[in-house]
Amino acid sequence: MKQPVGIFDSGIGGLTVLREIERLLPWEDTIYLGDTARVPYGTKSRETVIRYAVENAHYLLNEKIKLLVVACNTASAFALEILQQTLGIPVIGVIEPGALKAVEIARTNRIGVVGTEGTIRSGAYFDAIKRHDQKVAVFTKPCPLFVPLAEEGWTNNSVARMTAEQYLQDLKEELVDTLVLGCTHYPLLKGVIGEVMGEEVTLVDSAEETAAEVKRVLKEEKMLKREMGRKGCHTFYVTDSPGRFITIGRRFLGAVLDQVKLATVER
Amino acid sequence: MKQPVGIFDSGIGGLTVLREIERLLPWEDTIYLGDTARVPYGTKSRETVIRYAVENAHYLLNEKIKLLVVACNTASAFALEILQQTLGIPVIGVIEPGALKAVEIARTNRIGVVGTEGTIRSGAYFDAIKRHDQKVAVFTKPCPLFVPLAEEGWTNNSVARMTAEQYLQDLKEELVDTLVLGCTHYPLLKGVIGEVMGEEVTLVDSAEETAAEVKRVLKEEKMLKREMGRKGCHTFYVTDSPGRFITIGRRFLGAVLDQVKLATVER
Repeated sequence: MKQPVGIFDSGIGGLTVLREIERLLPWEDTIYLGDTARVPYGTKSRETVIRYAVENAHYLLNEKIKLLVVACNTASAFALEILQQTLGIPVIGVIEPGALKAVEIARTNRIGVVGTEGTIRSGAYFDAIKRHDQKVAVFTKPCPLFVPLAEEGWTNNSVARMTAEQYLQDLKEELVDTLVLGCTHYPLLKGVIGEVMGEEVTLVDSAEETAAEVKRVLKEEKMLKREMGRKGCHTFYVTDSPGRFITIGRRFLGAVLDQVKLATVER
Repeated sequence: MKQPVGIFDSGIGGLTVLREIERLLPWEDTIYLGDTARVPYGTKSRETVIRYAVENAHYLLNEKIKLLVVACNTASAFALEILQQTLGIPVIGVIEPGALKAVEIARTNRIGVVGTEGTIRSGAYFDAIKRHDQKVAVFTKPCPLFVPLAEEGWTNNSVARMTAEQYLQDLKEELVDTLVLGCTHYPLLKGVIGEVMGEEVTLVDSAEETAAEVKRVLKEEKMLKREMGRKGCHTFYVTDSPGRFITIGRRFLGAVLDQVKLATVER
């Protein structure tokens, strides 16, 4: 199928998911929507996040996408089910793939999860992990400063390290052997988080796992693009002016973003 | 005049301004609107911030306020003029009072200003200070991590101190003698900022200066409330669910917030 894969996030973070999709499925076209006028979702309520997610999804549906990736943990936690029930195309969130991977690789059945306040408060990772394996012990910790640190580009300095030490102390004491990075911004802090947790703890990058799930579903549904010679086109929409998205997005995508257009998604 | 004073902010920060207004004018009634569904404004564009500010102002105008305080630096930078020209009541921002105070007290004519990316990028403090005294040298620095630190309650720990050291280094090297806290969240970090800058640097708290300006204008316009026996009523509206606002707001207001109601301001 020629149609593009749609991806939305509250802002910039979902670009880490797009990056992995590009890596795994380089010929697929994509349309990315960053709701930068209303970012962040992580501190907002369930009702508000659902309203925003539905608006974003419908904007992308109008662009004739064949599959939707909800590349935002908070939106996945609150709005995935309603989107899966109403859109009529496959909808993939970022929580289930990371949760499943963590259960598969945990050696001592002690899994930690870090994320925004909204994601952790929703209990979505806790529920998803427990659904796969009731016996696993799950320890969660909201780390609200990780997002502004990643956006500031302070991913490897003393402030980042000290913040990680402060946030991750409890999880270390619980002796988790696997840690899920439950926010699309956190892959940028992988180095510091890994150092603080120690090498005996395996990090699960939900961006990587989500991309693998996108590939699996496209294959299963026979929706993969057939022409595989040409690299895919990547279009970007944002709901606030593109300047900041372009500057900061480069670090998240690992490539220059051109063709970033302004979108109005409110209905 | 019996009518309440209206105050809006992108979220919680404006409560530091309300706190000072309560202190100076304890008998006045107030209505506070926190646009928590769309917070923060500091990273958003001029056009988006103007749209949000106009919506917030009209919501409060419907509540029959006698004076409006734009208790958000970013909204003051971008939207104050348009609100002053269109609302038909006095409108006071948080930039002008702090800028004027800084010019009055600066001993060596070297003034520093810290704020969000949006406030600093707008150049509003720079312009306001220069308007009062062309000879003053103004040095500005965006400090985006200060807001999430204040909201996390990390106002006096090692992460806060190290972040302040990193951000304020340039201003210290410029030998400013006065530093304007150009964001309503920053009074919570006054202790750490003061320590890092050293006691020879005077901090200007724009919340305090704005409250003084509110008092001056109400007096001049003969709008002060006449009954001064009873303490004022304080009503709060937020655009997202009140839970987080109530929890975190307590630290900002220095008092318990009851009567927080949900508002819809989008038009």
